Amino acid sequence: MTVPYVRLDKNDAAVLLVDHQTGLLSLVRDIDPDKFKNNMLALADCARYFELPTILTTSFEQGPNGPLVPELKEMFPDSPYIARPGQINAWDNEEFVQAIKATGKKQLIIAGVVTEVCVAFPALSALEEGFEVFVITDASGTFNSMTRDAAWNRMSTAGAQLMTWFGAACELHRDWRNDVEGLANLFSNHIPDYRNLIHGH
Amino acid sequence: MTVPYVRLDKNDAAVLLVDHQTGLLSLVRDIDPDKFKNNMLALADCARYFELPTILTTSFEQGPNGPLVPELKEMFPDSPYIARPGQINAWDNEEFVQAIKATGKKQLIIAGVVTEVCVAFPALSALEEGFEVFVITDASGTFNSMTRDAAWNRMSTAGAQLMTWFGAACELHRDWRNDVEGLANLFSNHIPDYRNLIHGH
Amino acid sequence: MTVPYVRLDKNDAAVLLVDHQTGLLSLVRDIDPDKFKNNMLALADCARYFELPTILTTSFEQGPNGPLVPELKEMFPDSPYIARPGQINAWDNEEFVQAIKATGKKQLIIAGVVTEVCVAFPALSALEEGFEVFVITDASGTFNSMTRDAAWNRMSTAGAQLMTWFGAACELHRDWRNDVEGLANLFSNHIPDYRNLIHGH
Amino acid sequence: MTVPYVRLDKNDAAVLLVDHQTGLLSLVRDIDPDKFKNNMLALADCARYFELPTILTTSFEQGPNGPLVPELKEMFPDSPYIARPGQINAWDNEEFVQAIKATGKKQLIIAGVVTEVCVAFPALSALEEGFEVFVITDASGTFNSMTRDAAWNRMSTAGAQLMTWFGAACELHRDWRNDVEGLANLFSNHIPDYRNLIHGH
Amino acid sequence: MTVPYVRLDKNDAAVLLVDHQTGLLSLVRDIDPDKFKNNMLALADCARYFELPTILTTSFEQGPNGPLVPELKEMFPDSPYIARPGQINAWDNEEFVQAIKATGKKQLIIAGVVTEVCVAFPALSALEEGFEVFVITDASGTFNSMTRDAAWNRMSTAGAQLMTWFGAACELHRDWRNDVEGLANLFSNHIPDYRNLIHGH
Amino acid sequence: MTVPYVRLDKNDAAVLLVDHQTGLLSLVRDIDPDKFKNNMLALADCARYFELPTILTTSFEQGPNGPLVPELKEMFPDSPYIARPGQINAWDNEEFVQAIKATGKKQLIIAGVVTEVCVAFPALSALEEGFEVFVITDASGTFNSMTRDAAWNRMSTAGAQLMTWFGAACELHRDWRNDVEGLANLFSNHIPDYRNLIHGH
Amino acid sequence: MTVPYVRLDKNDAAVLLVDHQTGLLSLVRDIDPDKFKNNMLALADCARYFELPTILTTSFEQGPNGPLVPELKEMFPDSPYIARPGQINAWDNEEFVQAIKATGKKQLIIAGVVTEVCVAFPALSALEEGFEVFVITDASGTFNSMTRDAAWNRMSTAGAQLMTWFGAACELHRDWRNDVEGLANLFSNHIPDYRNLIHGH
Amino acid sequence: MTVPYVRLDKNDAAVLLVDHQTGLLSLVRDIDPDKFKNNMLALADCARYFELPTILTTSFEQGPNGPLVPELKEMFPDSPYIARPGQINAWDNEEFVQAIKATGKKQLIIAGVVTEVCVAFPALSALEEGFEVFVITDASGTFNSMTRDAAWNRMSTAGAQLMTWFGAACELHRDWRNDVEGLANLFSNHIPDYRNLIHGH
Repeated sequence: MTVPYVRLDKNDAAVLLVDHQTGLLSLVRDIDPDKFKNNMLALADCARYFELPTILTTSFEQGPNGPLVPELKEMFPDSPYIARPGQINAWDNEEFVQAIKATGKKQLIIAGVVTEVCVAFPALSALEEGFEVFVITDASGTFNSMTRDAAWNRMSTAGAQLMTWFGAACELHRDWRNDVEGLANLFSNHIPDYRNLIHGH
Repeated sequence: MTVPYVRLDKNDAAVLLVDHQTGLLSLVRDIDPDKFKNNMLALADCARYFELPTILTTSFEQGPNGPLVPELKEMFPDSPYIARPGQINAWDNEEFVQAIKATGKKQLIIAGVVTEVCVAFPALSALEEGFEVFVITDASGTFNSMTRDAAWNRMSTAGAQLMTWFGAACELHRDWRNDVEGLANLFSNHIPDYRNLIHGH
Repeated sequence: MTVPYVRLDKNDAAVLLVDHQTGLLSLVRDIDPDKFKNNMLALADCARYFELPTILTTSFEQGPNGPLVPELKEMFPDSPYIARPGQINAWDNEEFVQAIKATGKKQLIIAGVVTEVCVAFPALSALEEGFEVFVITDASGTFNSMTRDAAWNRMSTAGAQLMTWFGAACELHRDWRNDVEGLANLFSNHIPDYRNLIHGH
Repeated sequence: MTVPYVRLDKNDAAVLLVDHQTGLLSLVRDIDPDKFKNNMLALADCARYFELPTILTTSFEQGPNGPLVPELKEMFPDSPYIARPGQINAWDNEEFVQAIKATGKKQLIIAGVVTEVCVAFPALSALEEGFEVFVITDASGTFNSMTRDAAWNRMSTAGAQLMTWFGAACELHRDWRNDVEGLANLFSNHIPDYRNLIHGH
Repeated sequence: MTVPYVRLDKNDAAVLLVDHQTGLLSLVRDIDPDKFKNNMLALADCARYFELPTILTTSFEQGPNGPLVPELKEMFPDSPYIARPGQINAWDNEEFVQAIKATGKKQLIIAGVVTEVCVAFPALSALEEGFEVFVITDASGTFNSMTRDAAWNRMSTAGAQLMTWFGAACELHRDWRNDVEGLANLFSNHIPDYRNLIHGH
Repeated sequence: MTVPYVRLDKNDAAVLLVDHQTGLLSLVRDIDPDKFKNNMLALADCARYFELPTILTTSFEQGPNGPLVPELKEMFPDSPYIARPGQINAWDNEEFVQAIKATGKKQLIIAGVVTEVCVAFPALSALEEGFEVFVITDASGTFNSMTRDAAWNRMSTAGAQLMTWFGAACELHRDWRNDVEGLANLFSNHIPDYRNLIHGH
Repeated sequence: MTVPYVRLDKNDAAVLLVDHQTGLLSLVRDIDPDKFKNNMLALADCARYFELPTILTTSFEQGPNGPLVPELKEMFPDSPYIARPGQINAWDNEEFVQAIKATGKKQLIIAGVVTEVCVAFPALSALEEGFEVFVITDASGTFNSMTRDAAWNRMSTAGAQLMTWFGAACELHRDWRNDVEGLANLFSNHIPDYRNLIHGH
Repeated sequence: MTVPYVRLDKNDAAVLLVDHQTGLLSLVRDIDPDKFKNNMLALADCARYFELPTILTTSFEQGPNGPLVPELKEMFPDSPYIARPGQINAWDNEEFVQAIKATGKKQLIIAGVVTEVCVAFPALSALEEGFEVFVITDASGTFNSMTRDAAWNRMSTAGAQLMTWFGAACELHRDWRNDVEGLANLFSNHIPDYRNLIHGH
């Protein structure tokens, strides 16, 4: 009954950043703001470092949800950016799904705000269509840990793999020798303890 | 082995509010009282906003369990209200099951007090009879988090989907354009942070 | 060395609500939003119930701090409302201090956001000028509990008394017989457990 | 894929109390001692109230594990009591298994100390032999919550149902009308909040 | 600047049990119900064991606050029992103060529900009148730990000594040789770990 | 649908200690350092006590990850020790896999730092190749509990059994009579409460 | 008995950054690393923004304590930097004290690692010599919260004021109109929630 | 009003280890057992390293409190060891006080189990007699954090200084140059993170 190990492959993975908007971020209370900001930017740095196709989407930017955080906008100037006119599940937006399918990748790395909606809904839809889904849990946030636990349960039961940005980076990189300096730099910028190890070494 | 995404559909869902009674509420200690009251009323507001058939039931109102909280009684004056004479599992009460089947809905949204009994027992019974069950975890409360964790495990293993009122509202609504003002109002009344975003916008 | 018991007196107390603004409220993370909103409104209800002179002030409403929350604005239409042009310590604003002194009260009940600045600064200034200061800790919020603990220490050391809205209400009321129904109503509206006791009684 | 609801049946259930010994109890730190003692005795009271065949076993009483707590010994003077000479998994002791099989029951309600060993080992063995296993999680204790979480995962994955004494009591009782006073008395003796509801009613 | 050690003296101490009523107890959420009930009864047992004059009082028993918990009523059949007609601060009730003064004791051991009102108000009043006040913090409960912290701060600043029932028992007893069996019995009945040590010894 | 109980067998088990390096250990924050050190050494002591073939591996010792902690190096002077030149998943290192296969064991007991990478990756790979995998969760550490929870979910879903060193020791030992003194000594050295039971007995 | 309000004055304050070294930072576990790094740099930014004389010191850089974190070194290229040859209490180093006295400031803002040693020792010494001491608690870290609580108690009792970087910044700035953009920028760089308010405004 | 800095002086300090007995240790639940054992032994190592006169005492070793833990007995074979026949406050035992006074030291470093009794009582008595008292909080343990907080408050108010073993070691040592290797060794043996820094250096 053992399922085969579905491993992230940097040649077959795309990143979906869903609704990291200024208003919605103020709702996140299951992760401390300093840590959440770091995790979100660390995942974005991973996407760039591994040159993964990345798709941005937002929900109702002109309303209280607010605009996409400027850091992400600046980091991905050439990426598809779908400002959804109303669909809550991003997968209900055809343009978003087409952008994903256009990448030709089978593995989807998803993060967003809030976890049980903006992440879980497209994750469940993607699983239904046969994609391999990897949720970056620590770059996804929501109201409280109880809500998060319920969302994790729903996604995991449906076949999503729960990961964090660091684990995903390690699985994508495979071998330090592919680029020691690059990976160390990524860690140094987003893991203060690792940075201290480097500087104290 | 991936299961299809079973998605809440406002045309095929009914709400069961089980044993939200004044005495039983004093037993709830896994969620803070202010938050729990808000969650319970938010779910009730969702039921009304999406015009979902809603069924109320209580256990032994004349004893220490106490009467149904007055807010719920007032919100659903025309809904079936089954004051069970003794059955602990509401599904053991024929009138309750008949009221559910009379709605003709296949999806059951359940919340109640206490989670491992008043919610879990009818949820497990409903799953056994082929209903799709969505537990609104944050409008359900119990003695402590350990008890909750065990109850979630039992329900999830049997096929129930664990959600919160906000996630359910989003999945039922599907698209902001169906009614921007209505949904925003619902959120404003039950999510202080969202209300602040609206007023600060 | 025992200091005499300085007791809240409804005939000698005024309430200061400092910077309960929509933007600043999103910074509060030492108290859950549902609970904090309830505490803030409970204190406001106390101010009205005991007919205490109440003074509202805000910092930079036109900027990211946002406007005063609308509930407070509506509850105190005739109260002094000082929108400070820049002073961070409200006590540095002459109009604010004059409004306080115009009440002729010696006891100041203070709450606000964030605790270590908007509450602590005027509390310390008021103590310096000889007022008796009662901080309503649970209607005051800040970034995290560590910040709160430091702020409490600073205020307590300087002579402020740390209270909560419920304790203040009880000390102001003195005797249930002064108005049983009124006090019970106040508690019922802001303490779900007490409401349940009343309805289950 | 939905599994049928396996429901506790008082006519088909036996209770196994495994290694509630004075020394081992001092190792329990995932539940507060006052609460744990109450839960353990509440489960024992359930066993007696529902007249379930109950089997006691201990591991090495003469060593540091210490004797069975005297309360349990007194409550079940006529129950099988197997002081195991060395087997850590009680199921490895033939006398214990024979005592279970002699009850003729298919459902086993298990609790003990420590969770991941004294409970999990016989639970896993019983499942392997086709019994229906119900773990009373709150009458089982261990070193810390991390250990408990791992033990729950192992047992749940193997098919055990995780419950608490209160949920088990409710599922065994089925209907208040079977004996209102008896059940209320059970709750009053082991749930202070429920006792208060009864006395305040 | 060192203050002399004010030590509990069983010949000069009285116990005040304030408002341990069924309704008010349901408000207590800073201590788990099982533990709180144990602490409350442990303090009562201490009062009896050391034969300290004990005074009971309640607030509005006929209303939602509910009656005094029956255990305390039964334990002190001959003690003064002042059902206050309305005074929130028990010290505002002359009969209560007279009962205290009639004991001729200078040291007051106080516990009650809720901490910041029913305990803090009479504690502050007693300090003002020159009594030595010992608050039994773990037999006193309130809404949450934040409220408790503020109440402790207010009482400690005014000169009250913060203790727990176990510390008070030890300070009152002074020397095991005064009665080994009696003290061990007291501990065995209220400290499960100590009971296990005794039985495992 | 019940899976058979896969039980640790000391004759068919090998231990993999993955990346317990001085630098990586400073990243561990989901377990307190004193406790983590103890757990790591306790597992190592188990490996020696049960004479299980043990394989050590490290990642980039010359960099910030730092050298293997000296205690482990000293405890297993004759064990295979694979200092991986770059592979992040130890299973990608042929020498490591060959060392495992050379033991001829089917059961792998794995622990390491950090959990979601150094433990999860080889655990998933081993499961894929048909090994039975037992993760010693409390001798494995990572950045925070959220990361740990996600890693546990991924490993458990793939078929790994989550255990702790104490549970593994008990399952390996089977019967106290195999060596009372040896097992008691192991516990005494790594469980202070058990040591106290022994010395107080 | 009220002490006058001792208020931070940007014209009379100096900043002491004590032992923020790469090795020592790995010991900090009472604050999450992401948050602690942010707090440390926020305080440093405050020092520069308000142009406060700043003094850096380290303990044994060549040993395991490690070098000063490079960010601080870069931010204060012209500040006095005293690498202490051995004194644990920085105040025991004459050069350090002379550098402080050379600033001519009476108010000392202190932060460092670890709180109970590197911060508390010089704070206590400075108080003894008549300086006004403001401890920036959230830019100071140590092993755990218990250690922190004890250190806070010792410093507060001796007259130190406990603050956080945000409170200090506000007290130093006094009035938004002194430089709206500068202060907003400082907050935007170090408080993600505030940054979101600015960008969402 | 500033009090002078009372600083630990290795030439004027004695250590009191009060009631670290096997039975009493099982009552300690405010600190994890692994950490508590380490702290207790770390303090003992400090006492030996700084050659401070050390006095051991126990309460009723022949009863459930159990014998002194063997490690301490072995470490101080020549120290005064007063097995008190019954006095709960060690200071009530003349032999104990004489042993202290015989050291001629004015500073007393105290730790023990449980905090609010075995530590607080002699600490308060010593303060009353004019000693300078330093409580090693992390080598003292009790039932829960609430009890600890109350005990700390009582001791601190009476003039005791709250410290931890690490802070005390640093204050006693004064300057690394007095013995770099000795202090590093002490830290390496009791602070895993520091040990890792040393080995990774």
